[in-house]
Amino acid sequence: MTYYPLPVLMIFIGEGINGLHLGVRKLILGKNKEAIQKLARRQTEAGAAYLDLNVGTAWLKPAEVMVWLVKAVQEVVATPIALDSRRLDVIEAGLQVCRNPVMINSTTGEKEKLGPFMELAVKNQAAIVGLTMDEQGIPPHAVGRVAVAKRILDFADGYGLPRERLFIDPVLLPLKFSPSQGPVILEAIREISEEKAPPHILVGLSNGSQGAKGRRLINRTFLNMAMACGLDAVIADVLDAHLTKAAAAAEIILERHPYSDQFLQALTKETKAGNG
Amino acid sequence: MTYYPLPVLMIFIGEGINGLHLGVRKLILGKNKEAIQKLARRQTEAGAAYLDLNVGTAWLKPAEVMVWLVKAVQEVVATPIALDSRRLDVIEAGLQVCRNPVMINSTTGEKEKLGPFMELAVKNQAAIVGLTMDEQGIPPHAVGRVAVAKRILDFADGYGLPRERLFIDPVLLPLKFSPSQGPVILEAIREISEEKAPPHILVGLSNGSQGAKGRRLINRTFLNMAMACGLDAVIADVLDAHLTKAAAAAEIILERHPYSDQFLQALTKETKAGNG
Repeated sequence: MTYYPLPVLMIFIGEGINGLHLGVRKLILGKNKEAIQKLARRQTEAGAAYLDLNVGTAWLKPAEVMVWLVKAVQEVVATPIALDSRRLDVIEAGLQVCRNPVMINSTTGEKEKLGPFMELAVKNQAAIVGLTMDEQGIPPHAVGRVAVAKRILDFADGYGLPRERLFIDPVLLPLKFSPSQGPVILEAIREISEEKAPPHILVGLSNGSQGAKGRRLINRTFLNMAMACGLDAVIADVLDAHLTKAAAAAEIILERHPYSDQFLQALTKETKAGNG
Repeated sequence: MTYYPLPVLMIFIGEGINGLHLGVRKLILGKNKEAIQKLARRQTEAGAAYLDLNVGTAWLKPAEVMVWLVKAVQEVVATPIALDSRRLDVIEAGLQVCRNPVMINSTTGEKEKLGPFMELAVKNQAAIVGLTMDEQGIPPHAVGRVAVAKRILDFADGYGLPRERLFIDPVLLPLKFSPSQGPVILEAIREISEEKAPPHILVGLSNGSQGAKGRRLINRTFLNMAMACGLDAVIADVLDAHLTKAAAAAEIILERHPYSDQFLQALTKETKAGNG
């Protein structure tokens, strides 16, 4: 299978380097730098705009693990990094060694988190992901998530963070366990995208299909539906050629990418090779 | 490849028996009833809720061709028929021999057509497709198409046609030649679906990919995007398993179909056989 850079505006954040996955955790434990670097290279070649780095859990010194990951990745690619942690100290450690534009992933809408995280983003000229959850948890309906999104937007404005560096994540829950989440999140995406000066809107795509059968089918179907509602960024498996193809086709339909026979022919060839 | 009935609410209208396609035209010319019946059976097995019958052009007596098609199909399946013609006399001829629920495909929003077509639909308890085009042609923007849709709704109300038998078609043009049509039609679908007591909303899916490379990719991507905006019916190639799978996955995301591991597993199996 060949990869081709995604000629799309959709912002793909490669999810592949995540210590929550047993295989990656083993690579980190074994200090297998080459294998981590291979993941970084492959995701970059497949078109990732950012590489998400998540150290996983149960480390004595997670900040040190993050620094090791950042350094390993930066040795081989210049792709911007998304520092994925709920801990401010882990993010801060990562920021100190990141050479390129960086994304902080993530803050929530909790008031005591928003201040320090926004400050950090502004200070480091970083992009930042804001999850639409607050002290009460994840609002079950779209209206609640949009309300938290607006609070995050207000905070970002207050700290002087430009909207183009703000990524709102309306929190895609697993459909298998929260089957009513599909319409809720599509509605939330649509409403947030209708803001004047909308932020980027992002989901963690693989969350939606967690524990499900036919994960890749659910992933690409949801991605296309969410793009129709205004999603313009996604944390996802960029090595899934079905998925990136579906995104590329959606870009053409949305007229973000000009119609091109040549481009579609390349996608079709891939399809004929059995990846349709 | 095996087919399985679509356990979805999406209304699939099988496009396979269309005399505009050279192959089908030849079958009609040769009075090859068995081949037409095979097309009817295969589309029915694949889950078509209606079978579209279009005689094509350049017949001396198109009404007679329609009657022959209807009779041929009805010999082997009870699937409702969509009589596809712009000519009232061809539709009328078809209606006289149809035994099951039937769809009239189509009227436009032109005032002189709306009256007779609505009357015919009401008299025959038929469903009817209304294209959002009028005396001036196809409005280039969503607002114009929605306006024509509203005129059709008003006429339908006036004639006492219930909304559940009305299918508004906002006219999907080929993306290759009208690349700006994607966002326009998605917006039109969304606005029409936000009507109180909305009608069904339908497109002729294959129109969108006419002349394009990667037609099936465009078809299923557009279908998923349009479903997120409120599309609930489609004239399409129901024998494209990729397409029906994408629709089924979208139904689960929209919570129209309950989440089911078993169902998704069946779809996945098909994927593994190379149809992903």
